[in-house]
Order: sequence, then structure tokens, then C-alpha cells
Amino acid sequence: MWGMIATWRMALEGVEKGCDMLMQGRSAGDAVEAAIREVEDFPYYKSVGYGGLPNEEMEVELDAAYMDGDTLSVGAVAAVRDYANPVSIARRLSQEPVNNLLVGEGAEKFAHKEGFERKNMLTDRAKAFYRKRQREVAQQELKPYAGHDTVGMVCLDGNGKVTAATSTSGLFMKKKGRVGDSPIVGSGFYADSKVGGASATGLGEDLMKGCISYEIVRLMKEGLHPQEACERAVNLLDKELKERRGKAGDLSLIAMNREGQWGAATNIEGFSFVAAAEGQRPRVYLVKRGADGHCTFEEASGEWLDDYMRTRMAPVEE
Amino acid sequence: MWGMIATWRMALEGVEKGCDMLMQGRSAGDAVEAAIREVEDFPYYKSVGYGGLPNEEMEVELDAAYMDGDTLSVGAVAAVRDYANPVSIARRLSQEPVNNLLVGEGAEKFAHKEGFERKNMLTDRAKAFYRKRQREVAQQELKPYAGHDTVGMVCLDGNGKVTAATSTSGLFMKKKGRVGDSPIVGSGFYADSKVGGASATGLGEDLMKGCISYEIVRLMKEGLHPQEACERAVNLLDKELKERRGKAGDLSLIAMNREGQWGAATNIEGFSFVAAAEGQRPRVYLVKRGADGHCTFEEASGEWLDDYMRTRMAPVEE
Repeated sequence: MWGMIATWRMALEGVEKGCDMLMQGRSAGDAVEAAIREVEDFPYYKSVGYGGLPNEEMEVELDAAYMDGDTLSVGAVAAVRDYANPVSIARRLSQEPVNNLLVGEGAEKFAHKEGFERKNMLTDRAKAFYRKRQREVAQQELKPYAGHDTVGMVCLDGNGKVTAATSTSGLFMKKKGRVGDSPIVGSGFYADSKVGGASATGLGEDLMKGCISYEIVRLMKEGLHPQEACERAVNLLDKELKERRGKAGDLSLIAMNREGQWGAATNIEGFSFVAAAEGQRPRVYLVKRGADGHCTFEEASGEWLDDYMRTRMAPVEE
Repeated sequence: MWGMIATWRMALEGVEKGCDMLMQGRSAGDAVEAAIREVEDFPYYKSVGYGGLPNEEMEVELDAAYMDGDTLSVGAVAAVRDYANPVSIARRLSQEPVNNLLVGEGAEKFAHKEGFERKNMLTDRAKAFYRKRQREVAQQELKPYAGHDTVGMVCLDGNGKVTAATSTSGLFMKKKGRVGDSPIVGSGFYADSKVGGASATGLGEDLMKGCISYEIVRLMKEGLHPQEACERAVNLLDKELKERRGKAGDLSLIAMNREGQWGAATNIEGFSFVAAAEGQRPRVYLVKRGADGHCTFEEASGEWLDDYMRTRMAPVEE
């Protein structure tokens, strides 16, 4: 059995590519890296890689991570500027004996020495979004931090290796140096080939408070189906945050176990994800959350998919 | 009931100060911050704050964190240079609605705007250690990364609030931008006032692989005594790392529950810690690990304590 699951519709082309590789017998490490790179490279996804939205100083600062579920090796970068594929730097770091999580200028120095591709990641389109948001914030129409879609993936290969990886430009208009859950092991991602993997998207600051990806893998280790594990972890953290803080940020999770079974849960409307496994072609699903916290899915319609791409590629009204 | 527990002998003076504050009815937030600052300010502790050992570029880069167990609010900084008290910046960040984890230059900008004390944290003594280590590494006498003692604390106040905090200069001779477990919620620390708190010291890259502070708090939530929780989590992670990687880095943990009961466990020789609670004055304990992974403690002798301070303050032989 092999399989992949990933957050948001934007992961579709990457998951298709990754699944092709898995079918050819490639490893879960290669497949998940290639899949994330596909998302990083597409300029119209404004929360990951090239075209990602900038911080409050109009710099694109990127976070990414990679975890190998066989060895539990982790590599991650945070607040990295102007490298084309942060996930590949992260994977490379996972092979180091120590110094696996590097941030800021130190991460950039490492990437430079290792020969990773430099690229100005700030696009004209992202600058247009930045100027628009500045005006909206000035007019108090929008909170500066709305919108934060990380791509997170879990991958299982035919040899039973589970990997997880993430990539994001983080919160739009974040403070310089702000790091969310995506490069933080246990929060943004976790993988254990004996069990499975999980990955998160939403408000990093709240996802971190529950070490939610670790918790989901742990629940799967106790025997829960990925769907039960995701729902239980999301609903518990949502409840604790509301009880203690009066509100909970967006929490959306995906998971896959070592049998290729998968699940997803969220506390918001509008969460989409992509899942595939041996015998199941990559499909986009929309999540519907019931009043009891139970989540159901339906496959996205052709109309929904067309509309998604149209809105992503529409001109930015300035 | 109130109480405090902290990693390593170096925490003693800080814990004494924190306990005085708790006895006077001050909060676990104020007490843990003051206690960590005491360790940060002492120039002879070479792995925390002023006098902390530098990275491979001879820069002192500091990591620190703070967690409030009532709200689960977290604040943390990583790879921060030349601020006197990183733990205070971390606590300040815990009060922000988002942008709670800041790294590198962005963290320094925030600290500057908030008026935190600037201080060149690289002492002549640390420079002497750096030059000595460079020679030793050149002569292959020592691996560059030996030695990594984080101060981590858990604090419980009379109102039942639990906090956790950490501060470290990280691995000696680390790569620029390297971040360990100390500013990572769930790995270096975790606090939940409904349960208790935990904090870690050792090889950050390995501690992170098990989200071990979160796991200990979770085990306490299931009803385990802090001692059982620490031992079970340390022994399981140690076993998994050895099985999958052939070896495990240093893992040393402390924990306290909301009743003021405490525990500690380690997979190394020589781990010391400080514990205190209502009716128990702050004492330094030395941990002895049995072949079965069970840990026992004995109070440090006057001779041990004298020797500790003598070696810390001895001239650096260059």
C-alpha cells in the first residue's frame, strides 16, 4: 500500500506528481519533497513558496520542514528569504547529525553553501496584495492577519516508510521573524513509520498550544482510525482554547496511517484537502463539520474546482 | 501548595529567589521569570545568558521560552543576540495575540522596540573557551558539540497557576541560526495548570523527536505521578532512538504536577536538578539511573556543591 494526503486544494498537482513517483516505486522521501516543490513553484498560491505573501516589512519569509518516520529525523528552516524550495533545504538538514532546525540568516548561509537555488520570492502580484492590505488595514476593513494556508503532507510508500513535510510563507503581514507551527515538529507535522503521520494548517500560534500533529499520531498509535484521531484532537484543542481563551484560531488537520487509511478534521468552514492511495486516484475533498464536531467529506465538483483556480488567478484589484 | 523544579545545579539561586516570591504570594509567571533571569545574569554559567558559549561564528545566539498554563499562551525567541534577558522577551511575547515565536533579527527588532536591555553577551571567558575548543577540534580531541545545559523550570503558585520557562545559549559551536528544543513548545517545555508542567535539557535535536515535555504532561493528565511520567517518557524515547538510529542523545527531564509533587528522569550520568515546594526548601539533587531505567535521587553534598562552583569559576586554560 502507498498513499498521500495533503492540506488544501493547492496540493493537487503536487500529490498527482508524488503519486506517480510512488507508483514507480520511489520513496516517500522523494515523493513528498517533489510534491511540496510543485506547490512552492506555482506563483498563484499566495501562502507557499514563490508568490507567497510577505511579512509586515514586505519580505517573504518562508518556513518548511521534513520528517522521516523511519529514523524520526527532522529537518526544518524558518524565516528564510529568497530560496526557491525551502522544503528541499529542510530535507537536506534532516540528514545532518545535529543543527537540524536553522532559522533566518543562518539557514540562508547553510543553503548558500549547499548550493540551493536562489530566487527572489516576492512577486509583483504579492506586492499588489501587500499594498491592497495596507490600505484595507488603514481603513480598518480587515485584520492584518487573516489568511494562512500552509501546505502540509503525509506520504506512505510501498516499503512502509512514512514521511511528513510542510511549506508556508506564514501569516500574511506577520512580524519579521515570526515562526508558526509549520517548521515545529509535533505541531505542524509528525511522522512515525510504525504508526503514520499528520500535518496541520491554520493559526500556528494555536496549533502549537496542543502539539496537535504529535497528538494525532499518538492517538493512531493507540489504535484510533486517522479520522477519529483527527476529530478527537481538533475538538479537544478547540474546546480547551475556547474555554481558556474565549476563542480558538483555525485548526485543520490531515492524517494517514501505515495502512494508507486517512482522515481530516477542522474547526472551520471551507477546509479542503487532497487524498490518494493505491486504488484511489488523487481527489479534492471539501470538509463539512457537524455540530457535534464530526467531519464529513464530499468530493469537490468541477464547478468548485474551476472557481477555485479562477479566484486564485484573478487580477488583484488595487 | 506552591513549588518549583528546575534543571541543573545552576538553577539554585534562581529557584531560591523564585520561592521567596511564591511565599510572598507572587504569581508563577513573575517567579519563574525572575528565577530564570538570575541564571541568565550569572556570568560563570556557560550555557545560559551572559557568558553563554558562542556558535561557530563566535556569536552568542540565545533561545528562551515562557508558557502560561492557565491560558496555554506561549512566547519564545530563538537565535537572539545581545539582549540581557531573553526569558523576559519571551514572556512579553506570550502576551501578544499572534507572532508569539520570533527568531533572529525579527526578534531583536521586537525587543528593541519594547525597550529590553541590550548587552554584549559574549564574555572574555566565553571567547577563551571558544579559542580552546577550536584548538581541541583541530586536534580532534573533542567533538565540537559536547556540552549543552539548558535551564528549564516549572513553577506552581498558590493560586494553582503552572508556568514553564527555559533559557539557553544552545549547543556550543552550533551552526549560526541553529535552534534546539528550548524555545519549542512541547519539546523544551509545556505547562497546563489543569495538570502540571515539564521541561527538558540535553540534545535538543533528539528531545524534539519525541515532543517529550508535552508527552510528560499528557502522562500526568492520565494520572501518572511526575516521577513515573518522566521515567516512562525518557525511557521510551531513549529506546526508540537507539532502535531506529543506533544511539540516543542526552535526555534529561523535570516535571511538577498541580499538587506540587515532582519528578525527574535522565538517560545520562551526572544530571542534577533543584526542587522546592511548600515545606521543602530548595535543594540540589543528583540523579542516579538504574539499569532498569528507574531513577533515584540523593541530595548533593557540601563537597559536591563546592566542587561544582570551583570548576565553574576556574580559570580557562588556553
